[in-house]
Amino acid sequence: MSDTSLPRGFQFAGVASGVKTTQGVEDLALIFSDRDATIAGVYTTNLVCAAPVNVDRERTPTSRGRVVVVNSGNANACTGSQGTADALAMVAAAAESVDVDQSQSLVLSTGVIGSFLPMPKILAGIKQAAGQLAGDEAGFLAANRGMLTTDSGPKHGRLSWQGEGLEYRMAGLAKGAAMISPQMATMLAVIVSDVALDEETAQQSLRAAVDQSFNCISVEGHTSTNDTVLLVANGAAGGPPLDGAELERFQQQLDQLCLTLAKMIPSDGEGATHLIRIEVQGAASDQDARKVATTVADSNLVKTGIAGCDPNWGRIVSAVGYAGVPLEVTDVSLQLNGMAIFAKGVPLEFDQKVASQSMRDQRETLIELRVGDGPGRCRFWTSDLTVEYVSFNSEYHT
Amino acid sequence: MSDTSLPRGFQFAGVASGVKTTQGVEDLALIFSDRDATIAGVYTTNLVCAAPVNVDRERTPTSRGRVVVVNSGNANACTGSQGTADALAMVAAAAESVDVDQSQSLVLSTGVIGSFLPMPKILAGIKQAAGQLAGDEAGFLAANRGMLTTDSGPKHGRLSWQGEGLEYRMAGLAKGAAMISPQMATMLAVIVSDVALDEETAQQSLRAAVDQSFNCISVEGHTSTNDTVLLVANGAAGGPPLDGAELERFQQQLDQLCLTLAKMIPSDGEGATHLIRIEVQGAASDQDARKVATTVADSNLVKTGIAGCDPNWGRIVSAVGYAGVPLEVTDVSLQLNGMAIFAKGVPLEFDQKVASQSMRDQRETLIELRVGDGPGRCRFWTSDLTVEYVSFNSEYHT
Repeated sequence: MSDTSLPRGFQFAGVASGVKTTQGVEDLALIFSDRDATIAGVYTTNLVCAAPVNVDRERTPTSRGRVVVVNSGNANACTGSQGTADALAMVAAAAESVDVDQSQSLVLSTGVIGSFLPMPKILAGIKQAAGQLAGDEAGFLAANRGMLTTDSGPKHGRLSWQGEGLEYRMAGLAKGAAMISPQMATMLAVIVSDVALDEETAQQSLRAAVDQSFNCISVEGHTSTNDTVLLVANGAAGGPPLDGAELERFQQQLDQLCLTLAKMIPSDGEGATHLIRIEVQGAASDQDARKVATTVADSNLVKTGIAGCDPNWGRIVSAVGYAGVPLEVTDVSLQLNGMAIFAKGVPLEFDQKVASQSMRDQRETLIELRVGDGPGRCRFWTSDLTVEYVSFNSEYHT
Repeated sequence: MSDTSLPRGFQFAGVASGVKTTQGVEDLALIFSDRDATIAGVYTTNLVCAAPVNVDRERTPTSRGRVVVVNSGNANACTGSQGTADALAMVAAAAESVDVDQSQSLVLSTGVIGSFLPMPKILAGIKQAAGQLAGDEAGFLAANRGMLTTDSGPKHGRLSWQGEGLEYRMAGLAKGAAMISPQMATMLAVIVSDVALDEETAQQSLRAAVDQSFNCISVEGHTSTNDTVLLVANGAAGGPPLDGAELERFQQQLDQLCLTLAKMIPSDGEGATHLIRIEVQGAASDQDARKVATTVADSNLVKTGIAGCDPNWGRIVSAVGYAGVPLEVTDVSLQLNGMAIFAKGVPLEFDQKVASQSMRDQRETLIELRVGDGPGRCRFWTSDLTVEYVSFNSEYHT
């Protein structure tokens, strides 16, 4: 997707403000629309949510958005009324830096919980970033770097498609490698597009895309205080707000980009050596299927088994049993990397060495579960659990 | 408690039947009462439950129990109708070996999921064990060893108390170090006592004791297929079935022994370096308090932080926020090893080095959370998450 042009009417910047202590590492990003944009947002359901989440939740959806400021290295979460004041100071400074009203500004934060933001550094960084805004590749990549924390590399994507007479473009920037669990959105992501959308449509489209992408991933099942996904649609491609077949095409593209970005997160899960795809079918409802998928995904025994390339299927089937979904073990069947392992409650003969080798050979491990004859399905991604994850999170400073 | 005599009227044996491949390691135990005993049981709520759980669930409570056979190394779970036949063959063989009716026999299994039991070895082991039954220390300890799997050492306890004119005794044998999560009972344990109890009283007493002990522990939050706790009361101390003050005294003793055994499990959690005690108060109900405690207990980020002796309290407070319990962050306060860290939604100044040192110095880490002004409380124990847990479970053979 990297040869696709960026959406029209957007500018980006990323700078090193000094929140992160490593010299020269970007920790602050600005995303600017040169005209009023419709912005929709979905946010963490964690009741202990960060100050920026509260600020943005009040402001979206809006049809007058102009600027999003993001800082990494400090989540501005669990910071009480001081945190709220700091988040409001950030949106005001970002608005002033690009000469728009403060009500047209949003803020995202990610990083350590429970520390107050170093506001002089943040405010200076915002001014510096505003001076570097650019609509080119370099600006876009710098903005993405400014969002990252423990990510091993950048997370972005883009695509374009042909509407009725107009070419539309979309690009997404994301971050996340831990504290990932799908209660709503589960990390930070900003999707920018040059389509025109009305507020309500933007909100519905984003919600639908997130439910099948960012809400279908986990790393270790810990829901963050800061999860936010924003969709910024500025209409710079021309044309009226999308509806009908145009809107359907947009939704397909949005779904695809959200899924691409979402899968990057567990794939880059801290220390991860396998991306685990879990496909559940035959549940009474999609909700039941999701419960089964998340229970399997959050089992440390399943995750460590896969890290060890061990086809330890008993751990998978036993996790199904405590998912809180009514089922009979005689209706449960399992395939692992395409090999039938367990059928209607009975273990099958299979070649453990072949199964183990397939886990060694492939970065993605596929768990297919059938739990009955119902219509409910879910497709879910998680990462395995390795020694490196534990080492890293035992040492990550508070 | 080790200088207390064993309850009267019980005999024990543990032998190496060959289910475990290591030469000479016990993997089969018999627990025998020389007279009809009241037996109560509580079992896993996992819907994918093992054949022995189904067999025992049908048979308890009973007032005519005589023998319990336990095998380790193979859980007889996910084994379909063959597994049921094998479990029934085990109870029949155990009954025959001590010359009682097969309906007076119970069976417990633990170990690898999804393999059929090697029945010739098991049946020979039962006969051998019956020949070695003894009411002494050696028999009791051998029976405990016969129950263990990845446990680092034995798990047993005993106590005695003075009733109205009679001395009563109780002893417990347990196992468990992983696949531990409190959906009901969460491992194997057998409590034997020489008190007399009627069936209904035994069942109620055991349920009450388990709810505050074995149901308040976890290692990694994965509910096993085989969890079982049995209470075997044979009345050999003399006297009628307990009631009134006698029953209350018994309940206190049972609560204490269950708690002692339960805490041994996360303390011996695979690779664990800290036992974590979580005390939640101020919730709307005990059930809400338990939800908060288990959510904190099951967070890998909390567990790895404690493994690293890192007072990373943001992980704890953020876990409270996604526990699924209504709360305001301004009502949440946290103490860690007695140090106030976070009060009514605001971070406090504290000495991180002192907090970290206290975690290094103490095997038990204490997390005290207040989440409001309600009457709901929970006390819960879990283990930390270390590199050793992951290494072990990536390598444990299927």
